[in-house]
This record gives sequence, C-alpha cells and structure tokens, in this order.
Amino acid sequence: MKVFVIGIGLIGGSFTIDIKASFNEATIFGIDRSEENLDKALSLGLIDQKSSFDNLDEADVVIVAIPVDATVELLPVVLDKINDSCLVFDVGSTKKKLCEIISEHPKRRNYLATHPIAGTEFSGPQAAIANLYRGKTNIICEVEKTAFKLQERGMEIFSRLGMRIRYMDPASHDKHIAYVSHLSHISSFMLGKTVIEKEKNERDIFDMAGSGFASTVRLAKSSPAMWAPIFKQNKDNVVETLEEYIANLTQFKELIENDDFDTIYNEMKDTNHIKTILKGIS
Amino acid sequence: MKVFVIGIGLIGGSFTIDIKASFNEATIFGIDRSEENLDKALSLGLIDQKSSFDNLDEADVVIVAIPVDATVELLPVVLDKINDSCLVFDVGSTKKKLCEIISEHPKRRNYLATHPIAGTEFSGPQAAIANLYRGKTNIICEVEKTAFKLQERGMEIFSRLGMRIRYMDPASHDKHIAYVSHLSHISSFMLGKTVIEKEKNERDIFDMAGSGFASTVRLAKSSPAMWAPIFKQNKDNVVETLEEYIANLTQFKELIENDDFDTIYNEMKDTNHIKTILKGIS
Repeated sequence: MKVFVIGIGLIGGSFTIDIKASFNEATIFGIDRSEENLDKALSLGLIDQKSSFDNLDEADVVIVAIPVDATVELLPVVLDKINDSCLVFDVGSTKKKLCEIISEHPKRRNYLATHPIAGTEFSGPQAAIANLYRGKTNIICEVEKTAFKLQERGMEIFSRLGMRIRYMDPASHDKHIAYVSHLSHISSFMLGKTVIEKEKNERDIFDMAGSGFASTVRLAKSSPAMWAPIFKQNKDNVVETLEEYIANLTQFKELIENDDFDTIYNEMKDTNHIKTILKGIS
Repeated sequence: MKVFVIGIGLIGGSFTIDIKASFNEATIFGIDRSEENLDKALSLGLIDQKSSFDNLDEADVVIVAIPVDATVELLPVVLDKINDSCLVFDVGSTKKKLCEIISEHPKRRNYLATHPIAGTEFSGPQAAIANLYRGKTNIICEVEKTAFKLQERGMEIFSRLGMRIRYMDPASHDKHIAYVSHLSHISSFMLGKTVIEKEKNERDIFDMAGSGFASTVRLAKSSPAMWAPIFKQNKDNVVETLEEYIANLTQFKELIENDDFDTIYNEMKDTNHIKTILKGIS
C-alpha cells in the first residue's frame, strides 16, 4: 500500500507513525512545501521517501493534512492527479466549503471528508506522536458520496488506528465544531492576550500563575497558520459562538457589579454539570 | 507539634498529608462544620483526631483552609482563642480584605497571610493528594507584621513541603491574581455555559469535544462555594479583568467580521509568546 501524505506535521506525521505500525506492507511518501520539514520527517522515520505531486498517480491512499485554506486550493489538483482506485481523505477542522468545492469533481467518489478530533498544541514533524488517534472520534461527512470500496479502505485505516466513527453532514459539523473546538481556541488566545498585555512589564508576576491558568491558556500555543484559515472558513458559525460567549461573560460581569452572588453561585453550580459531560475525554 | 486544620477539603487535607509525612512529631486535629467531612478525613488518615474551636488554645499551628468569606468571619475568632506562641495561616485566594480586617487584632503578630498557588478542579477530603504543593509558589503578604519566630515556623513547613516563597503586598496580590487565576476560572465557566446552552438537546454532540476543549473548560468543574466568595471579595479587580477580556474578544470578533485575517494571524502569533512564559508550569 503506497500512502502519500501531503503536509508532514503533527497531524500528518502522527498518521504515518500509526499506519507504519499497523500496516506492514505500507510505504509512506511525503510531500511538503517545506524541504526542511521533509528532511526532518525522513530523519525521524515518519516517511520512507520524499515525493512530489507528479508521483500521485502511484498512490493507493493520499492523506491531505495541511491548513484548510490550502486544502481548498489543492484538493481538486490532487484529485486530478490520482488514479481511479485511489482514496483521498483530508483531516481539516472545517468541512462545508471543501465539500462544496469538490462536489462536481469527476473524482468526487475517490474523496472521503474526515475530521479526526485529535491534536496537541504543538506543530511540525517533531510534534508527531504515536497513538494520537487511539480512542478519538473521527467525524466523516457525506460518506455516501465516496465509492464503497474506498470507504472500506478508509475504515480499515481508522479502525486499526483505534478511532471511533461518527457520521454527520458538513453544515452540522461546522456549526457544532465551532462550539466545542473553535470557540475554546479563541477564548484561550484572548485570555493569553489579556494577561500578557497586563503583565508585560512585570515578568515575575507569572510566578503567580498555576496549573489552572496553564490549562485554560494551553490552546493559545496553537499554530496561527492552521487556525486563521479555520476561522475564515467557518466565519458565520464562529461569530455566532463568540456573540453568545461575550453575552454570557457580560452578564456574569453585571451580576458581580450588582453584587448578585447568589445567582453567580447558581450559574457555576449549573455549569459544574460539565463534569459529567466530559467524563472520558482526557 | 499540634497542627489544627480548619476546613479539611482538597487544600487543607493536602497540607495535612504532607505535614504528617514531613514532621514525625506532628499530630493533626481537624475542625470542619461538616461532620461527614470530618469522618471521611479521619478514615482517610488526613487527621488524627476530630476537634473543635474550644481546643484551639492547645494549637502550635492553625491552618485556615475554608472559603474566603468564612475566613473573614472566623479568623478573628481563631486569633481570640489561640495561645500567644501559636502560628495561624490561611490559604485563601484573596488577601486584601482579610489583612485589613485583622490589622488591629491584638494577636496580629500570630497571623501569616499566605496563598499557595496550587489546587485541582476537585474538592472535599477525598480530593486531597500528596505533594500538591511541591514546586509551587506560595505568596506571602505583609510578612513583616508576623512575629519573627512564627515566620520561621511557617517557613519551615513551606520549605519541607517544597514550596517557593514570593513576598507581595495584599493589594498587588489581589490585582495580579485576578488576571492569572480568577479570570481564567470565569472564562472557563462561561465557555462551559455557552456550550451547554447550545448543545442541551443534542447530547451526543459532545462526542465532538476533544482534549483541547476539555483542557480549556477544566476549571468549570471548580467549587462554586469556594469561587463565588472570591469574586465577591475581589470584585473591582475581577470586573476590570473581565472588561479587558470582553474587549479583546469583541475586537477579535470584529476582525473576523471584517475579514481581516492577517491581523488575526498576527494577534495569535504574538500570543504564542505564552509558550515561553508558561515554561515550567504543569
């Protein structure tokens, strides 16, 4: 099985580690616009060979693991170049625009739209780790538009990597993922910004920061090159979540200003319910 | 050494575990308004004996580990009851009001105002853990107002428990801790609230939540009984941090609405600097 990975960073590299471990017969070919990343990936053993778009016709599987704006541009080109029995899947955090753009492509049936809910705040080939996807959810959109044999090939990979599959339409995916993923990245980035602005001349104040702050602001370490295009493609949903979040924060601030600490207590008590909801996510 | 702990939950209980391990001669007496908590603490081995305010005159050390509103009420009573060579310290997340209230107490020199920057999102005696304080910062306010011999007794405890000491005045403490601790609790609670409100009728949407969301919303599991009084006592500082946070979120939302993704990229790039700042906090 010849697997081509376009974009050999945290997400792409973590796929190749597990695929090499799960499929003895797999050979991994890396494509990346950064020659430095390709060299790193080769020396880290994430790929077996460096390759290029010109060789995509040899691929059995192509994994597109690049920022979502680049995926929208390159996925049609990739589909043009592959052979008729090749499976292509992407792993981006937005699905609607991408599914629209390739909906009329003659090789639409070679493409599977997926979003593995997995990652860390780090990036680049050196951030790739084994078992990143084990026990994680993989959301698949418009599965019925992918050729049955290629669905099967994808499922075999996701299954050996230990993923749970959920099916969803692209519009619902983008709407809900805005709440459970995109919003928390923005809340974290803006928390980091607020504190950095305040404390910029008082560096040792950060001695006061504990593990709670570190946890809440962890996502502010994430890659801007990955996240700016996500906010762009999911603009309407992200703006909606931000409006609701800002409204809740403003109401909480007003409750404090009005000394209504009973209501504040109850709001927090109700939100403690998140314990139950999050059980099992680590 | 007779150590009395008032409030035998996560914070108080984690102190007694480490004090018992570090001081062979220590006997731990527990005081708690909840008889159930006291019984649990006894069966978990967090305390050696149940006790009451009437016995405080026997204490060498009293640790006050209760919500900050209760501390303001009870600390003067505790100081009334102790003997002249007893050290009392509290562990609350606000220091200004407390230091003001006991500033004229005849036993002011028996009191040390401390804030160990340590905790988890859990609460109660069963949440107490060993080594919670190892490597953590302990902020001490108005150290010069505590008798020298009792400063020494406190430092011996904090040193054996592995804490780093920082000195700060109470007003600065409350101002800065609002940024690095209180604000992140509110951002987390309101993130949890926003998502729960949206997804209340679609429970399996939480399958979409990954480790990033879990990390950002972790503090929303915290105890309302502990946090509502903190926001009350630190009202002015907390409102200020919330205003700045809301302003940053609103500006970010407007950048998205205006399709200014270059500025969004740069804002996130600048905030990535948090990586360096947080190095060492886990």
